[in-house]
Order: sequence, then structure tokens, then C-alpha cells
Amino acid sequence: MRAMRLLAPGQALEPAVLPLPVPGPGELLLQVLACGVCRTDLHIVDGELGEPVLPLIPGHEIVGRVVATGADVEGFVEGEQVGVPWLGWTCGHCDYCLSGRENLCPEARFTGYTRAGGYAEFTVADARYCFPVPGLTAQEASPLLCAGLIGYRAWRIAGGAELRHLGIYGFGAAAHILAQVAVAQGQRVYAFTRPGDHTAQAFARRLGAVWAGDADQPPPAVLDAAILFAPVGELVPLALAQVRPGGRVVSGGIHMSDIPSFPYRLLWQERSLHSVANLTRRDGIDFLALAPTVPVRTETVAYSLEQANEALDDLRNGRLSGAAVLLP
Amino acid sequence: MRAMRLLAPGQALEPAVLPLPVPGPGELLLQVLACGVCRTDLHIVDGELGEPVLPLIPGHEIVGRVVATGADVEGFVEGEQVGVPWLGWTCGHCDYCLSGRENLCPEARFTGYTRAGGYAEFTVADARYCFPVPGLTAQEASPLLCAGLIGYRAWRIAGGAELRHLGIYGFGAAAHILAQVAVAQGQRVYAFTRPGDHTAQAFARRLGAVWAGDADQPPPAVLDAAILFAPVGELVPLALAQVRPGGRVVSGGIHMSDIPSFPYRLLWQERSLHSVANLTRRDGIDFLALAPTVPVRTETVAYSLEQANEALDDLRNGRLSGAAVLLP
Amino acid sequence: MRAMRLLAPGQALEPAVLPLPVPGPGELLLQVLACGVCRTDLHIVDGELGEPVLPLIPGHEIVGRVVATGADVEGFVEGEQVGVPWLGWTCGHCDYCLSGRENLCPEARFTGYTRAGGYAEFTVADARYCFPVPGLTAQEASPLLCAGLIGYRAWRIAGGAELRHLGIYGFGAAAHILAQVAVAQGQRVYAFTRPGDHTAQAFARRLGAVWAGDADQPPPAVLDAAILFAPVGELVPLALAQVRPGGRVVSGGIHMSDIPSFPYRLLWQERSLHSVANLTRRDGIDFLALAPTVPVRTETVAYSLEQANEALDDLRNGRLSGAAVLLP
Amino acid sequence: MRAMRLLAPGQALEPAVLPLPVPGPGELLLQVLACGVCRTDLHIVDGELGEPVLPLIPGHEIVGRVVATGADVEGFVEGEQVGVPWLGWTCGHCDYCLSGRENLCPEARFTGYTRAGGYAEFTVADARYCFPVPGLTAQEASPLLCAGLIGYRAWRIAGGAELRHLGIYGFGAAAHILAQVAVAQGQRVYAFTRPGDHTAQAFARRLGAVWAGDADQPPPAVLDAAILFAPVGELVPLALAQVRPGGRVVSGGIHMSDIPSFPYRLLWQERSLHSVANLTRRDGIDFLALAPTVPVRTETVAYSLEQANEALDDLRNGRLSGAAVLLP
Ligand SMILES: [Zn+2]
Ligand SMILES: [Zn+2]
Ligand SMILES: [Zn+2]
Ligand SMILES: [Zn+2]
Ligand SMILES: [Zn+2]
Ligand SMILES: [Zn+2]
Ligand SMILES: [Zn+2]
Ligand SMILES: [Zn+2]
Repeated sequence: MRAMRLLAPGQALEPAVLPLPVPGPGELLLQVLACGVCRTDLHIVDGELGEPVLPLIPGHEIVGRVVATGADVEGFVEGEQVGVPWLGWTCGHCDYCLSGRENLCPEARFTGYTRAGGYAEFTVADARYCFPVPGLTAQEASPLLCAGLIGYRAWRIAGGAELRHLGIYGFGAAAHILAQVAVAQGQRVYAFTRPGDHTAQAFARRLGAVWAGDADQPPPAVLDAAILFAPVGELVPLALAQVRPGGRVVSGGIHMSDIPSFPYRLLWQERSLHSVANLTRRDGIDFLALAPTVPVRTETVAYSLEQANEALDDLRNGRLSGAAVLLP
Repeated sequence: MRAMRLLAPGQALEPAVLPLPVPGPGELLLQVLACGVCRTDLHIVDGELGEPVLPLIPGHEIVGRVVATGADVEGFVEGEQVGVPWLGWTCGHCDYCLSGRENLCPEARFTGYTRAGGYAEFTVADARYCFPVPGLTAQEASPLLCAGLIGYRAWRIAGGAELRHLGIYGFGAAAHILAQVAVAQGQRVYAFTRPGDHTAQAFARRLGAVWAGDADQPPPAVLDAAILFAPVGELVPLALAQVRPGGRVVSGGIHMSDIPSFPYRLLWQERSLHSVANLTRRDGIDFLALAPTVPVRTETVAYSLEQANEALDDLRNGRLSGAAVLLP
Repeated sequence: MRAMRLLAPGQALEPAVLPLPVPGPGELLLQVLACGVCRTDLHIVDGELGEPVLPLIPGHEIVGRVVATGADVEGFVEGEQVGVPWLGWTCGHCDYCLSGRENLCPEARFTGYTRAGGYAEFTVADARYCFPVPGLTAQEASPLLCAGLIGYRAWRIAGGAELRHLGIYGFGAAAHILAQVAVAQGQRVYAFTRPGDHTAQAFARRLGAVWAGDADQPPPAVLDAAILFAPVGELVPLALAQVRPGGRVVSGGIHMSDIPSFPYRLLWQERSLHSVANLTRRDGIDFLALAPTVPVRTETVAYSLEQANEALDDLRNGRLSGAAVLLP
Repeated sequence: MRAMRLLAPGQALEPAVLPLPVPGPGELLLQVLACGVCRTDLHIVDGELGEPVLPLIPGHEIVGRVVATGADVEGFVEGEQVGVPWLGWTCGHCDYCLSGRENLCPEARFTGYTRAGGYAEFTVADARYCFPVPGLTAQEASPLLCAGLIGYRAWRIAGGAELRHLGIYGFGAAAHILAQVAVAQGQRVYAFTRPGDHTAQAFARRLGAVWAGDADQPPPAVLDAAILFAPVGELVPLALAQVRPGGRVVSGGIHMSDIPSFPYRLLWQERSLHSVANLTRRDGIDFLALAPTVPVRTETVAYSLEQANEALDDLRNGRLSGAAVLLP
């Protein structure tokens, strides 16, 4: 099969032709129909996330068709369309796994990072961590599996259905999905972008944001919570300054530049600062049930498998409006 | 009556002889039996907390005896011993008041800050914010009313009864009470002090801490949460570095020096950073019911009313082990 | 002013001409524009709810226009349209009031039951318990204030936004509002009516229920929770039998016939049985913010003030589809 | 090895000599040091719990010593003392397993019911569901594994650390452990027994209950919650009548006689009625960490393995004060 592989951090991906993988017990062999390109992929390729399993096939926003099932697989049939997210395996018996926080399992394995991912024609995944994604095209479903999910988990931590005024910093793939979910629940969304990025601001308004402006400008209302999707530590004090007492600032990224020094008064009054890591299967089940009721529409830009480096570059340089998706 | 008053921030308190205050409807006239001296008093006197009502009688860890009751007071009788905490009044109808977070009420008034406090022979308090404190001497009960309460609220936010390994940074009045509560619930307490402060470390061990050491040293276990009572922003990244994924760092202070720049990886993995502000009446009711079952023993150093400036100085300079209490 | 009054339980309401009430401190004088007729009114008039303050003006789904404000009223202006719900006053300092459950305050006073209500041309209400209701006609807003609110609180207790399959037993005023809220969140609603009541079943389907049938029939899916609006104790075991392990059955009524004997296995597997009592102001704020985003449409039948007895009779005999509203 | 087996419900257990079981992958072979006798065993033997796997070795309060480990076992070493509870296996991927409620997993298997239990010299258990129980004798640890755990889970559902006045109906094995936990947290425990059972009442008082009396008598305080360990449906309305508004009644049993008809007013005011089913591993970890800090002391009566029928009879007839334990 054709695949794109990372041989060493900091290098471009290399095309390769590899044997078809074989599903073990409990696993699915999938033909990859679409695989989203995520900022986390960038962090892995650029060496900002340590110790990937090399050589690595990246990609963790996979939508595929079941081609074969390993022994003991239940609940999936050949031909079915399924999604494979970042969380690829957990131990099932640590304190985290036992208390609904398998996203923090210290032995967890991650798709496209410590397991082979979806920048390929085929992939193998543990069936217990896959989700059915019926009723959507592979291309439009793909960004739901990471950008959508991490945004949803961040939103829940930020206060979820209790929020009324929600700020979102960085209006890319995750934000454009989350904004739709929040607006559908009657929440007022305020979008903050790089100063002067009028394209992104117009995009945010089109998706229902009541206000869109520069990240260093005050919004027209005090925020109940702010979610940061841009990996820029300087945004932390800016966001804390816009949030009401008792409100939360949540960083959705896996990587972010240093958080600068800030005065304690920005945190005081029971404000709090959070990060979001990975996802649980429960997040996936809940989000994929909710998304069609909104309904969430994703904006995607298609690339061929061999254009993976180009897609990564476009994301790195902020040239995308919506989400990049490889169609192998 | 005799009182000590702040005429302007940055100055020493001045003794004064004032007319006896008169309780309005819903208020209690109290003879002050003891009034604790708190770091918040220091912040007010030193001008680090803005806009006190001047001239101000500080003091918000008041234990007094009911001398007279205003109209419409229910539930208190003359001669009864009651405590008056920092939270002196709330609006009762804002979003915060209606959702169990009256500590964040934007119209709240605070004892010894925006209402007259307990550095005096007598004081007047709104009965709805007072608590009965039977069965303890006034001197030993006094530190429970702020140091005890703020520690209890910080501990609840940090995870409360769910914690197993709790770090406490700064081992003064609040910490010495909270450590007893946590130890009584079977939690393992790790005490962090100024480097080389062996007196405070020995004090912590005597109160049940399983380990006591310098704030820049690693404890022998990964912490579930850390509570900071020392008003030193540099402790934030130190504490984050010792807390497990998903764990919380909670600052108990009303004032703290700037939080320095720190790398995002200290926050990542769903760690979070919180502050605690004020208290709710519910905190008071719960904590004052719990404290006698531990039972909490407070260590206090007595001062006369006229020694208030001396007590503040001793606290400012870290010369206290336990809590300073004025006995008017 | 004209009013309809209850002189003794079990009797019809009597028309009366009374002096205009005078608003005390913190109160609003309102011209009643619309007042919904609620099953609770029936229970009061029929003597099933003990000790109303007699002679009583019933009615607690009031929408009125502010005619005058008493001393110390903040946040309301003359001419504004406001709603007055069942919860008319609470003590503000009991355990319940201090922990976000003022609905259970033992000293609470209730509109149209222990305070004068809205079956009149004018009424007086404590401003702290009133809500602005802009942007709706009085007639359509009226049922939101009790039927809507109690349904919303029942739904939250049943699991709220976490639910996927929700059963509703009894499809009248409360159900027709709640169904819209649940459907808007992507939930699947199953409506249970009196056996053979095809009119109510068609009404439910029109409002988005995916299934409507007789109360003694099984729905096509296992329910996550069931809410009972019909005051019929026999429904409790029927509903428990349709709910999954860990699911909840919630009775929304203030009065219900006896719950019959049932086998423990219907409760086992961590099912639970709940009742809902009254509302909190927080419920009101949250629900009235959510309702316009659905948007909730109410179906009402208008009566003149003097037709109050007729409206009560129509409700008692199940002759209403939607909610009865008096227009004084 | 020697074992006691159930050949058909309703019959006495039969002694047998069986081959030593062999641990599969992930399993432990344990020498049984002690196995508690539980009311659930009675329900199985008496045929009140359907479809045990026959012939069955009952017993799910097992303390054993690791004799051998199967392939892929981590975290246990030979010679270590471990406990085996009721929950013996779960699927790990259903909605319940993924949301911290594996106790409700529809595919769960149970020790001594759908897996072989501990009424034998040796047993095999899935290591992921076993707990280390160091520092206690096997005999005293045994009742913690079911009576202790189910009581703890019931207590958490009832309100846990938030409770002040806790009623316990039925003062046997589970109650005598839970009472110690609650008293250690400063809670006031009220013990209700069969009318006239002065022995049990004295036992309860000795363990710290502030009041002990007949189940049909009112306690001297309104209860925040009540937990029912006696499998008697008639207790449900009695308990509801003693619980405050918003309070909970929790049945800890797996089987109970029918709940009789009761008036709705006993449930109204947001009281609620719950059952408890099984346990999660998280319950076990938390409870076994808490128990030694109390410290919990168990009262046990020892029987030989061959006296299993006698032990069951003594439990059935209420002749035990404390918990029966088989010592094979
Ligand atoms: Zn794990
Ligand atoms: Zn991603
Ligand atoms: Zn307020
Ligand atoms: Zn203080
Ligand atoms: Zn109250
Ligand atoms: Zn009503
Ligand atoms: Zn399961
Ligand atoms: Zn058992």
C-alpha cells in the first residue's frame, strides 16, 4: 500500500510502498477514505512532541471502511464506515482508566504517534477505540474525529451547556466546529484571531459568532469562559483578563509556547486555567451523537496522499480556512 | 469603646476611643472576645488591597459575645458566643448569590475591609453571616474563622475528600489547621516551606505531615493537588511540576506576587491552576461542623488590642508559628 | 380591581372587586396581562394542597407590566414586561437557601398559594423573584413561568443534556414545552398518554416526539430517563420498567395519587425515583435564556378572567390541548 | 482441592473434591485464606437470584494468597495477600464501562455467581479485579470486600462526606463497617433494627451510633439520608418518612421484598429513592485506602469450609452479630 512516513523529526514525510497490515485479535483492517491533517501532526513532524515511534505513519483523524476484522471483534461489520481517533489504546486498569479519565492513562497509545496512523491507503485499529460514523461523507466526517472532539472536550471543561458567553481564541479547524455546537445551544460566541486577520473574522461571523475581532481587543461582553486553540502562550493572560470571576480559560492544544509572567489578580476571584489532553471514548460517543443534530458542517480542503507535506505546510503557515483532509 | 484604626494605607494603626456602635435591623452587637490577625489584614494595611472604607477598624476573625440584637434577628440570643468571618454581606439576587457562589457576589461587603471589623472592644455584624461557635475558647476559635475557612474552601476546590497526596506550600495559620483536617481523613500531607525553615518543617511534622521540606525540593510522592498559602508567585510552577496529570494547584491567597513565565508542559495533561476567593456561608457551616470532630487544635499567640501593630509586624516578618490573636 | 378568589377549598372561585394593592419596599405593582392556569391551581382549589392563605387569589404563571415600584427596587423600570413564578419569597439564610436549593426553603412563600396570585387585574410581587420576559407576547410567555420551568427542572434532575432517549408521561402544558427543548438538543422523545388518547399522541408527534403511544405500552427503545407529568401514581412502576440501569424516573407534580406496590427489581440496578419541588431563581434565569434559542412555541387557549372556573374545569377534565391562560 | 458447591437452587451446598484450577492469561491462582458469607450468597442458594452458573462454588469476599500468576499478569507477586470482590470481569467498552459505571456493565461476570467463588481451598481470579489487602489478617479483611464495599458505595450515593445525620436500617455486616466510617468523619449515625432487637441496638451503640432503636420508631433528628441493608421493602416508606426534603433513601441490597404502596407526599420535596448495584474497581481502591485510616474493625464469626451451610443458616435466621467468615 502507499503511505507517507516520518523518518526523523524535522524532516519532510517520505512516500513509501508498504505491505498491507494484518489485523490482530480485536482489531479492524480499514481502507482509509479520508484522514484529516491536525496541528498535532505538525508538532510531531516538527519534533515538538517527543518520542514518536519511527518510522511513523502520522494521521489520527481517520475515516475508513472496514475491510476485514480480526478475531473477537464485536459490533463492526465489513463495509461499515468507521472513525479512528487519536486515542488508540489504554490499559483499562489504572486509576485514570477506572475513573472515566482514560485520556490520562500513562500507558495510552496514540494513533499516528505511538501507533501507525492514517496517512496511508490502509490502517489497522483496535476496534474498541473506533466509532461508527454513518451518514456523513468521509471527507466531512474526518475533522470531527480530532478537531471536533478536542474542541468538545475543551468546551465541556470550560462549562459546557452552562455557558452563555464563550470566547474562542484561534479560529481554525477546531473552532469552526465548536462554534456551531455552541451557537446551536443558544450560546453567544466571541471569536478572537490574529490581529488584522479579517478573513478568519468573517469566517467566524459566518458560522454564527456574534463578534469577531483581534485577540488583543476586548469583546463587547464579559466572557464566562475562553478556549484557546492557537498555540500561543501570550493569549493566556489576555483571555484571563476577559473572563468573569469564577470563569475558566482552557487551552485545547497539546503544545503551546511559554505562558508569560502575569499578575495574580488575573487569576484571582476563582478564575482558573486548564489544559485539555486527548479524549475519552465517552467524549467520542457523546460528540458524534450530538454533531448530526446541530448539524455540524465542516469546511475542508482536499489534498491527495502525496500532498501531505504541502497540507502540513499550509497549516503551519496559517494558509487554511477550515480543515485539511488527505484523500488517499 | 477602644479600637485600633487604619487612617491611610501604609501607616500604622492608630488607637481611638469611639462611641459604641448601634445594631440596625438584622444585626448583632457583639463584645469582641478575640480577633485573629490575618495576612489579608496585612494586605489592607500595606495598601495591596485597594479601597478599604477609611477610617477602618480591621479584623475579620472575630469571636464575640452577643450583647444586644437589632430588630428582626432570629436564631441568636444574648450571651451566646458567635463568630464573624470575612464575608459580611451579599446582595442575595445576583447570578453568583443564586448559584451557591455568594463568595463572588460583586456587591459583597467584607468585615474589616468594607465594613468595620474586630480590632475593637465591640462590633456590629449582620446576623445572617454570623456562626455560633460553642464549646471552644474565643482565642482558639478565632483562627478557624478565616485561616481555617479559606483553607477548607481551597481544599475542597483542590479535590477535598478525594485526595490522597496533598502538598501544602507555606506552613502558617491556614496550613496548620488544614493539615489536621486532611490527616484526620487519612490523607498524606507534604509540607513545603521557605528553604531552610526547619522550625516550620518540624511544626508541620508535629501536626501529622508525612514529609516536610524546602519549597524547591521534590516530595517523595507525586501530588494529587497542591495548595499555596504563601503569597509567592514563584511557587506556582514549582507546585505544578509536582502534581500528577489531572491534578490541581490552588492558591489560597487574596494577594500574591506575579506568577512567573512557565512552560506549557507544566499545565498540560489536564492539570489546572485555581484561586480561592472569600468564603460562602455554606463553607462556614460545613467547616465549623467538621472542625470539632477532628478535633482541630489551633496554635495561637495572644496580643492585647493595643499591640495590633506589633502582631501585624510579626506576621509580616514571618516571626509567628501559629496564628496571632488580639484579645481586646 | 377585578379578581377571582377562593373562599374555601372545594368551592368555585368567586368574582370580587378589591382595592388596588400597594407595593412595599422591594416590591413591584404589576398590571396582569396574562396568567396561566396550572394543575397546581387545581390541587389548591380542590383542597389537595393544604393550608392556602384564604381568601386566596390563585395564579402563579403571571406576565405583567410594571406599573409602580416600591422603595429599594433595583433593575426594573415602569412599563417593562415581567414574569412572576410560583416561588415568591425565600428566607435567604437556611441550609437550603445557602446551597442553591432555595426551592426547598422551609419558610418559602408561593405565589397564588401563600401570597396573592395573578387571577386579578393587578398584583404585587417581590422584585427579587421576578424575571424580565421581553420579546414574547404575555399570552405565549405565561406557560413558560410554571409549566415550562418545572419541566426544565425535572429534565435537569433526570439527566438534562446527557440524555438521549427521554420518556414523557402525560402530554399537557409542561410536556409540550419540554419536548421542544429536548428535541432541540438532539434528544429522542417518547410520549406516553392515557391509553387511546390519539389527539395527545398526534400533538406530541407534531412537536417532535419520535414515538407516541399508550402509557402501558413499551416504547421502541430503552429510556435513559422518564419524566411523569400526569399525577398518577400507577405510572411510577410502568416508567421504572422502561428505564435502563442507572436511569431515573422523575415526577414533576406537586400532587400525585398513591404509588402502588412494586417489586424491588424495577428499582434495582441503580435506577432511582425522584420528585421535583418548586423552582429556584437560577432555574428561571437559565430556562428563560434557553427558551428563545429553541425557540419554544407554546400552545395556549385564552379565557377571560371571569372564565377562571371554566378553565379549571377544562384542565380537570383533560379537555385542553396546550395551556389555559387567563387574559384579565 | 476441597470445595462446597451449589448443585441446584434451594438445596444445601455439597462438599466436593475438585482438581486445582489453572490460571489463564491475566489471572491469579489464589489459596483461599478466608471467604466471607454474604446475604447475596443466601439469595443465590435460595434461588432468589436467577441463573447462577451451576454447579457453583459460591463466595465473593475472598482473601487469598497468590500461589501462581498466569501470563501477562502485572502488579502482583507470589505470596502477596489479595482480595477478590463480587465484580469479577467487565467488558471494558460499553457505555457503562466507559463512564465510570462498570458496575452496571451488561456483560459483567460476578464472583461466586457467574464465575467460581471462594468457598474452596483455591480459586482463580482476573488480576485486574483483585486488590492488594496488606496489613490485615485474612479473617478481618474478608468482610471489607463486599459488606464493606457495598456499604461504602451506598453511602457515597446517599451523599457521602456531605451527610450529617445518617440513618442505617438493618445493623449487620455492612452496617457495622459503614457506621465506623461515618462516625470517623464526624457524622451522627442512627441505627434502626427489627423491633425489640436490643442486642443489635447495643452493638450499634458500641460502634458509635448516637441512637439505636426500632425501625418503626422516629429517631431524635431528621435524617439527611437513610441506607437500607435489611432486604425488607416495608422499610422504604418508613425511611422516606424520616428523611428531610432533598434527602435520599438508598437500598444496599441485591434483593428485597416488594416495596409497598405509599403516598406521594413521602417522596415529594425532592426526596429520592435509589438502589445500589455491585461495585466498581474505583470503589474498591478508594474504600480499601480509607478503611485503615478509620481504622475499621470487623467483627467476625469463624466457620470451617465444611460448615458453610451452617453459616448460611445462621445468617438467614439472624443469629449473627457481625460477619460470618469461612476459613478453608
Ligand atoms: Zn490506564
Ligand atoms: Zn488532532
Ligand atoms: Zn450577589
Ligand atoms: Zn483572613
Ligand atoms: Zn431558606
Ligand atoms: Zn404551576
Ligand atoms: Zn461493559
Ligand atoms: Zn456480598
